[in-house]
Amino acid sequence: MSKRIRLNAVEMACPLQDNAGMWQLSGNSADRYKDLDYWVSLAELLEKGKFDAVFFADILGVYDVYKGSRDTAVREGLYVPMNDPAYVIPAMAVVTEHLGFAVTSSLTYDHPYSLARKMSTLDHLTDGRVGWNIVTSNLDSAARNFGLDGQIAHDKRYERGDEFLEVAYKLWEESWEDGAVIKDRGERVYTDPSKVHDIGHEGRYFRVPGIHLCEPSPQRTPVLFQAGSSERGRAFAARHAECVFLNAMNAEETRYLVQDIRAKAAAEGRNPDEVLFFPKINPIVGRTEEEARSKLDSYLAAASAEGSLSLLSAWTGIDFSTFGADQLLGFIKKGEERNGSSYLADFFSRNHTGAEWTREELAKYFAFGGAGSLLAGTPEQIADRLEAFVRETGVDGFNIAYVLRYDTFSEFIELVVPELQRRGLVQSEYAPGTFRDKLFGNGPRLPESHPGRQTRTGAEATT
Amino acid sequence: MSKRIRLNAVEMACPLQDNAGMWQLSGNSADRYKDLDYWVSLAELLEKGKFDAVFFADILGVYDVYKGSRDTAVREGLYVPMNDPAYVIPAMAVVTEHLGFAVTSSLTYDHPYSLARKMSTLDHLTDGRVGWNIVTSNLDSAARNFGLDGQIAHDKRYERGDEFLEVAYKLWEESWEDGAVIKDRGERVYTDPSKVHDIGHEGRYFRVPGIHLCEPSPQRTPVLFQAGSSERGRAFAARHAECVFLNAMNAEETRYLVQDIRAKAAAEGRNPDEVLFFPKINPIVGRTEEEARSKLDSYLAAASAEGSLSLLSAWTGIDFSTFGADQLLGFIKKGEERNGSSYLADFFSRNHTGAEWTREELAKYFAFGGAGSLLAGTPEQIADRLEAFVRETGVDGFNIAYVLRYDTFSEFIELVVPELQRRGLVQSEYAPGTFRDKLFGNGPRLPESHPGRQTRTGAEATT
Repeated sequence: MSKRIRLNAVEMACPLQDNAGMWQLSGNSADRYKDLDYWVSLAELLEKGKFDAVFFADILGVYDVYKGSRDTAVREGLYVPMNDPAYVIPAMAVVTEHLGFAVTSSLTYDHPYSLARKMSTLDHLTDGRVGWNIVTSNLDSAARNFGLDGQIAHDKRYERGDEFLEVAYKLWEESWEDGAVIKDRGERVYTDPSKVHDIGHEGRYFRVPGIHLCEPSPQRTPVLFQAGSSERGRAFAARHAECVFLNAMNAEETRYLVQDIRAKAAAEGRNPDEVLFFPKINPIVGRTEEEARSKLDSYLAAASAEGSLSLLSAWTGIDFSTFGADQLLGFIKKGEERNGSSYLADFFSRNHTGAEWTREELAKYFAFGGAGSLLAGTPEQIADRLEAFVRETGVDGFNIAYVLRYDTFSEFIELVVPELQRRGLVQSEYAPGTFRDKLFGNGPRLPESHPGRQTRTGAEATT
Repeated sequence: MSKRIRLNAVEMACPLQDNAGMWQLSGNSADRYKDLDYWVSLAELLEKGKFDAVFFADILGVYDVYKGSRDTAVREGLYVPMNDPAYVIPAMAVVTEHLGFAVTSSLTYDHPYSLARKMSTLDHLTDGRVGWNIVTSNLDSAARNFGLDGQIAHDKRYERGDEFLEVAYKLWEESWEDGAVIKDRGERVYTDPSKVHDIGHEGRYFRVPGIHLCEPSPQRTPVLFQAGSSERGRAFAARHAECVFLNAMNAEETRYLVQDIRAKAAAEGRNPDEVLFFPKINPIVGRTEEEARSKLDSYLAAASAEGSLSLLSAWTGIDFSTFGADQLLGFIKKGEERNGSSYLADFFSRNHTGAEWTREELAKYFAFGGAGSLLAGTPEQIADRLEAFVRETGVDGFNIAYVLRYDTFSEFIELVVPELQRRGLVQSEYAPGTFRDKLFGNGPRLPESHPGRQTRTGAEATT
């Protein structure tokens, strides 16, 4: 098999993300999210496991759909408190040489002039190991705290997003020519002013006349990540993204999304192979099938039903607190019918002891990001599943989430990675170069066909 | 002598700051500003030297007053390119345990909701070692790139600044009660929602209804730094600042500023001893007087006259490119008359060989931040000067700038710090605790009399 499977670890700078309730398992280090030591150890672990990158999700608000209140999210430590993830990257970079860092940064509450400097700074400090997960939207609770009455309308958000990216591309790709910084001691010239250009941007949402504050970093533009599943979101991803995150683990849906976005990218004049796809999985590995099974059972037992429903409510916008067992069962069955899955009949039924499903049992169908992302088994079984999924869908790797902070990655790296390496499916050594070099093997810069290379600045060199 | 002299190192994430031309001296590492390794080595050096903190200045624009163009600044590498300094802090924190980090962050181009999260995150990651240098203003070139036609008017800037701080205080000090995060496994409560409060801020410039995104960090509010010399600026400093930067090294002016701001702080109901003052110095140390003298001469020879004038133009708003030698001499003499100094007659005259001062010779009066900040001598002479200056003015420490990146600090730590330690003027061991504990010896939190402890949130606990 020729395609290398790329592995990213999913993290957030908060106690718990989708693993509601798991901070209670003894030994889990949910609260270490604020300790530098934790991030340093994690970086060392992931580089030992030859992971491509750690991916930082982020939100700037609080989940408050469930019961119309943030109380469940706060009580359970779900996505709140939430630190800014970008600041752990330089610390993780100190102890690693190859690991990439993809960080979520919303363009709704930032200005392209400062975001461009943030990303250039990180790319310099990490020697070209940075990616940016472009998020156009966020939560109502975030919008309100930035003084807005609510979120910017969906389509307008993407229109503004396109212009935001245009400004950023001009700053990263056009403002400073290669070789502008010459450090010529004889002529006493640090930077040649004739090679540093005003971008002269005058748009609908932004006006940025000047130069980028930073000299070109190794990648100039960070590797661009995006997750968009709406029609407009997919068009945005097809235009800008080099890496696309997918939540669905259903092969048919995944294949459709991969083909659709690749076709749209080609229609934009891009090489469709220059868009990589990463579905999210939640591996639970045991040395034997029984061990994996028993781990899954104990995780589900400890998972929080309330927490899982509060997350589901935030993701769907539906307040599930009013749903009884019957309604919940109906919702699940409809979903399984739609995507042809049978998780309820499969492993979830083992936890079901009574004649009827209780509300609590059913709620755990949504634990850990949902039954569709759970992958319990031996190293061989998990490797089989990943290999088959790549073959069936055309994805390029996986975003690996966790049930237990650190431990899930540690077990995956101890048990599954060696099996994947034995099969030649994942790397045993890192390729040289920047994050983009490692992902695509085609140099540190955005490819020529990417729209980021097509912008032209409106202004001439300084005089 | 009972007062401990506190030492901060001044840095910026750019090739050169006030040390125009010095990147040309062989061995100078001006271009290492973008390397993680540099910042890690610097952190280790400063902690070895028992410095209190590294202070990061920052600007978000380009100096363009001289000749009405940015070309001189760009050519000389002066304050441009400029990375975001906040991202080197976590890397420096990995290799240190005590060193503090004070970082400039402008409140003109940021929102209190995201700035509060940035500072809380850094305070968590560094275990309470963070300070914030509050900057209300910036450059016209910065304002334009953020889509504004020019800077916000001076007084309105401070009015907005006061409200910005009020929002930040509410988020840091009021939103999360002590003990809100209880991690009670038995009751399955990570955070007690009844102890997390909406701040309900409705002001003239900001509307922030919700909760702070972060749980309380060790210091909650970072140590607050400010530099303001206008009447309105001093009032702002007297109200908010715990540490004040001063540029003047003239004893009389310094004493006046210290007394004036302390009196204004007392009038605000604060303890005037809870405001510390740090003038900026540029030490040039030799094992003998001759060695120091010869270093200074070689530095002045290599300094850039054009660069120094372009900085002077940016600081004063006057384009000095049209000034001939006579006009420059008049400007200098007027300044010396006003503050009673005689640098021109003193060490600068040694570099003067002809019958009349040339424009280039005179320009170097402003090298390295200006003659007033230069302090050349043996370790004993420098220690004498610092000790006397503290006694005469009531300042609490010094912000140490450099002529040569790394090397100036390294020489100061090798030669001057041991002399200061021998005299009991600086610490030989760090005190325990956070940055604020170490500076004031009075706990990690803002003192009760500080306005940051006086805000009250407008909203009740969540229901």
